[in-house]
Amino acid sequence: MYSYKDLQELVNKQINNENFVKEPRQLYEPIKYILSLGGKRIRPVFVLMACNLFSDDIDKAINAALALEIFHNFTLLHDDIMDNSSLRRNKPTVHTKWNSNVAILSGDAMSIIAYQFITKTNSNNFFEVLDVFNTTALQVCEGQQYDMNFEDKKPVSEANYLKMIELKTAVLIAASLKIGALIGGASHKDAQFLYLFGINLGLAFQIQDDFLDVYGDTKVFGKKIGNDIITNKKTYLLIKAVELAKSADYKELYNQFFTKNCPSEKKIKSVISIYNRLGIKKIAQNKIVEYFNLAFTYLDKVSVNSERKQELSSFIKTTLINRVK
Amino acid sequence: MYSYKDLQELVNKQINNENFVKEPRQLYEPIKYILSLGGKRIRPVFVLMACNLFSDDIDKAINAALALEIFHNFTLLHDDIMDNSSLRRNKPTVHTKWNSNVAILSGDAMSIIAYQFITKTNSNNFFEVLDVFNTTALQVCEGQQYDMNFEDKKPVSEANYLKMIELKTAVLIAASLKIGALIGGASHKDAQFLYLFGINLGLAFQIQDDFLDVYGDTKVFGKKIGNDIITNKKTYLLIKAVELAKSADYKELYNQFFTKNCPSEKKIKSVISIYNRLGIKKIAQNKIVEYFNLAFTYLDKVSVNSERKQELSSFIKTTLINRVK
Repeated sequence: MYSYKDLQELVNKQINNENFVKEPRQLYEPIKYILSLGGKRIRPVFVLMACNLFSDDIDKAINAALALEIFHNFTLLHDDIMDNSSLRRNKPTVHTKWNSNVAILSGDAMSIIAYQFITKTNSNNFFEVLDVFNTTALQVCEGQQYDMNFEDKKPVSEANYLKMIELKTAVLIAASLKIGALIGGASHKDAQFLYLFGINLGLAFQIQDDFLDVYGDTKVFGKKIGNDIITNKKTYLLIKAVELAKSADYKELYNQFFTKNCPSEKKIKSVISIYNRLGIKKIAQNKIVEYFNLAFTYLDKVSVNSERKQELSSFIKTTLINRVK
Repeated sequence: MYSYKDLQELVNKQINNENFVKEPRQLYEPIKYILSLGGKRIRPVFVLMACNLFSDDIDKAINAALALEIFHNFTLLHDDIMDNSSLRRNKPTVHTKWNSNVAILSGDAMSIIAYQFITKTNSNNFFEVLDVFNTTALQVCEGQQYDMNFEDKKPVSEANYLKMIELKTAVLIAASLKIGALIGGASHKDAQFLYLFGINLGLAFQIQDDFLDVYGDTKVFGKKIGNDIITNKKTYLLIKAVELAKSADYKELYNQFFTKNCPSEKKIKSVISIYNRLGIKKIAQNKIVEYFNLAFTYLDKVSVNSERKQELSSFIKTTLINRVK
C-alpha cells in the first residue's frame, strides 16, 4: 500500500513532468504557476488511495488524479477573481500577478485540460467516471454561486450553509474517492460508500477550516487568526452564533457582520468573545467529530480488509481530528 | 435530406425544450438568456448536416450539436467580458445585464454542460468525437489569447492574423463538421476532408465578417459600418492595408490605429479612403473566394454523391459568396 506521502510525491512529480507551457505562453504560464504553488494535493491523492484500496496498479488512475487536481485549481483561479482575493498560498493570485482576463482565459483552458486528462483514463467503466466528473464539476459551480449569494447582508441558515459547502467543497473530494475506486475496479456499492465517506469528510474539512480561522494555533498553521471575520465570511461558527445569540449579542454580531466599516482588531476581539460566550468552539468541534464519525461508518462498510484502509484512515485522523482538539 | 432551415428549427426547438434554468437561478438564468438570443446556429446545424451526409438518422447527432452550440456560447460569454463588449446580437451582454462574476461562473457552468451533452453522444467512435472536442476547445482558448495579444499597439502580420482566426473561429466550425461526420459513420478520410472544408470555410467566414464591417450593405445586415475601425480591431483589411501602405498612408493608418483619441466619423472616413486607394476591397474579396474555392475542393473529395451535398453547398453559396459580391 502506498502512503499519503508517497502519493503526494508522485502527484507532484507528474505535475512537474507535464509540459503545461506551450504557445501562446500568456495562456499557459499561469497554469504552470498555479499548479506549482503546491498545496496538500488531497484530491489527486484520494483518487490514487481509493484506487489502491481495490488494486495494486495505481498507474491507471494517475490521469484521473491529475484531472481532479487541475479542475480544482481551475476553480481556485476563477473563485479568486470573483472573491477579489489577492493571495493564494501566500503568493499573488493569477489575476493579481497578471490580470483578470488572463485568469479567466487560463482558467477556461485548465478546465478543458482537466477534461483531456480524464479522457485519457483507460478504464472499462470510463462513462461512469466521466458522468461523475461532469455532475460534480457542475455542482462545484452551483456551490460557488450559493457562496456568492451569501455575500449579501442577510443571515444564512445552517441547512443552507451545509448545502453550500457540500456543493462547493465536499462533492469534489467525494468524487475523487469514487472515481479512484471505480478505476480500481470497485463495485458500485463500494464506490458509493467511498463517495459518502468523502461527502462527510469534506463537510468536516470545511468546518475545520472555519474553526481553525478562529481557534487554530497560528504557530502551527501559519495563518493569521480572524481573517474570515474581517472579510465578513459566512462560516459555520458565525451561522451558529447568529442562531444562538440573544438580544445584545445578536445586535452586536449583526452590527459587526451586516454593516460595514468596523475596525479589524476590535471586530475580531468582539466577535470571538461572543463565540466564547455562546460556546461556539465546542459546538463546532462536536460538528466536526459528528461528520468525521459519520464518514468512518461509510469507510467501514467498504468491502476490503481493514489493513488496506489503514493509510487512508490514519492520514485523515492526523490531518483532521487531531487538529481540532 | 434536411435543409438548413429544417435543422435550424430543430436546434432552436431542442434548445427551447431543454430545462436550463434550475437552482441556483442566478447561475442558470444567464445560460438560458444567451442561448435564447438566437443567431444562425451554424455550428449545431453543421454537426447535423455533416451527419446527414452519411446517415438518414440525424437524431444520434443532436446532443453533439447542442454541445457545440453551448460551447460556442460559453466562449462568447467570456469573450464579451474580456473584450468589454456591452452588446451581443443587439441585446445586453451577460456581464452588462448581470455582472462579470455572473458571466464568469455561468460561462464555466456552460462549458461543463457542453461536456454533459457531448457525453450523451451514443456512438461507437465516441472517444474520437471527444478527442476532437477537447483539442478544439483548447485551440479556441489559444485563438482568443492570440487575439488579445493583438490588442497592443504593434502591427500584426497576415500569417499571424490567419493563424489567430483559424484557432479562434475556423477550428470550431471544422470540428462541428468532423464530429457530425464521425457520428454519421463517415470514414476517417471523409471526416478529415470535412474538417479541412470547415477550416477554409471558417477562414472565409471571418474575412467576410471583416469585409462586411466596411463594405457591407447596412440595409441588409443591420449593422453600422466601421465598428471594427472605431474599436481598433485588427482585421484582414487593416493588416493588408498596413502591409501595402506607403509613406503618407502608412503614417495616417498608424496614427489612426496605433495612437488613441481619434474622432469616430473622421477616422472611419479616413481609413476607408486609404483602403479604397490601396484596393483592399478587391484583395479581401479575392481572399474570401480563394478560401471558399479551397473549401469546396475538400467537399468535392468527400465520397458521397453530390446530391447529398446539395443542401450544404447551396447554404454556403447563399450565406457566403453572394454576400461579398
